[in-house]
Amino acid sequence: MEKISNVIMRPLERSIYLKPYTMHFTQNGQEKSWDLLGVHDSVAIIIYNITRNVLVLVKQFRPAVYLGSINIEDRKLDCPIDIVKYPPENGITIELCAGIVDKTLSLAEIAKEEVLEECGYDVPLNALQFINQYRSGVGTSASIQTAFYCEVTDDMKVSHGGGTNDELIETVEMSVDEIRKYVTQKGVVVNSPPSFLFGIYWFLLNKCSKL
Amino acid sequence: MEKISNVIMRPLERSIYLKPYTMHFTQNGQEKSWDLLGVHDSVAIIIYNITRNVLVLVKQFRPAVYLGSINIEDRKLDCPIDIVKYPPENGITIELCAGIVDKTLSLAEIAKEEVLEECGYDVPLNALQFINQYRSGVGTSASIQTAFYCEVTDDMKVSHGGGTNDELIETVEMSVDEIRKYVTQKGVVVNSPPSFLFGIYWFLLNKCSKL
Repeated sequence: MEKISNVIMRPLERSIYLKPYTMHFTQNGQEKSWDLLGVHDSVAIIIYNITRNVLVLVKQFRPAVYLGSINIEDRKLDCPIDIVKYPPENGITIELCAGIVDKTLSLAEIAKEEVLEECGYDVPLNALQFINQYRSGVGTSASIQTAFYCEVTDDMKVSHGGGTNDELIETVEMSVDEIRKYVTQKGVVVNSPPSFLFGIYWFLLNKCSKL
Repeated sequence: MEKISNVIMRPLERSIYLKPYTMHFTQNGQEKSWDLLGVHDSVAIIIYNITRNVLVLVKQFRPAVYLGSINIEDRKLDCPIDIVKYPPENGITIELCAGIVDKTLSLAEIAKEEVLEECGYDVPLNALQFINQYRSGVGTSASIQTAFYCEVTDDMKVSHGGGTNDELIETVEMSVDEIRKYVTQKGVVVNSPPSFLFGIYWFLLNKCSKL
């Protein structure tokens, strides 16, 4: 299997599988666009508020998830998506606090920044517990994601969070009971990625019984 | 946040973020190519062999993971990758048995086929326990992945597995102790995706203590 040779990268050729798009849309009056493929390394942080015993998560509109909710035959180029047939709510996900690695800081420093920017908690650097690193995917882009665990208190809350200027992120809090119900929903798609599910199950297995 | 309008899909424009490639390479003498983005829905199956108390996993070369191991400055178009500097082993992953939804069969039937094709176990349909459905990603493609759990016995093993004609997949078996060590490795990137980590932690939390 390891006998690999003649490896060469070429620009994407005409393909029946790969159709990269730019999605253009207006959100709260602001025109935006999103390219439906990413390549940066990233960090993800499982945040647990020990003052009120809740997991701190983020909620946002994800164009790629929205696209995923639209029937293939309705994904026409240069043709507006019918937002009555496909409510934008379909694209709203619940995820771990996370961010891309695009600065010359340590991974823990980037994670600390994301906890502040997205969730409004100013945590000391040593509050970030390294969990592990893995591939963000295997079939598409496969950058490195680094997972951290971080306990916070209400005293550390210094701002509303919500992301930086061009982001629209809401903080969501869930108790352990609520999160158990959320991840085991039947009959609907859990609108969250596998990295979120990994983080939650890691928490349930490693932290939950000790808190 | 839900105030989304004017949604329109356009072909990917020039972008600093999104650089889709086709990777061309030769594997065991066979020329192959792989587009580094996928969009199909998929199934993933956590397989546990109760005859010998091992998890049954798959190992394969993933061009996207290999690409992810190459420094950005060495990702030049039309220029062979230096396989001495970047050993192809970097692209070999351990994953759950999985497959794309590209047939008009039920999800459980597709999962049953994958268990046979990749791992060589012929399981009854009702052995496939539905876990949940989630988004395969959020930043890039975000198709639906459906997770199943399946217990197998040595009696169900009818072939070597290894995937269909153009696949080169090896079956890997790990005990619970081995898998715990694998997912908690420090100092190296776990060469597996979050869906694998989710599946393993789901297993450790829900099944492990009952077996």
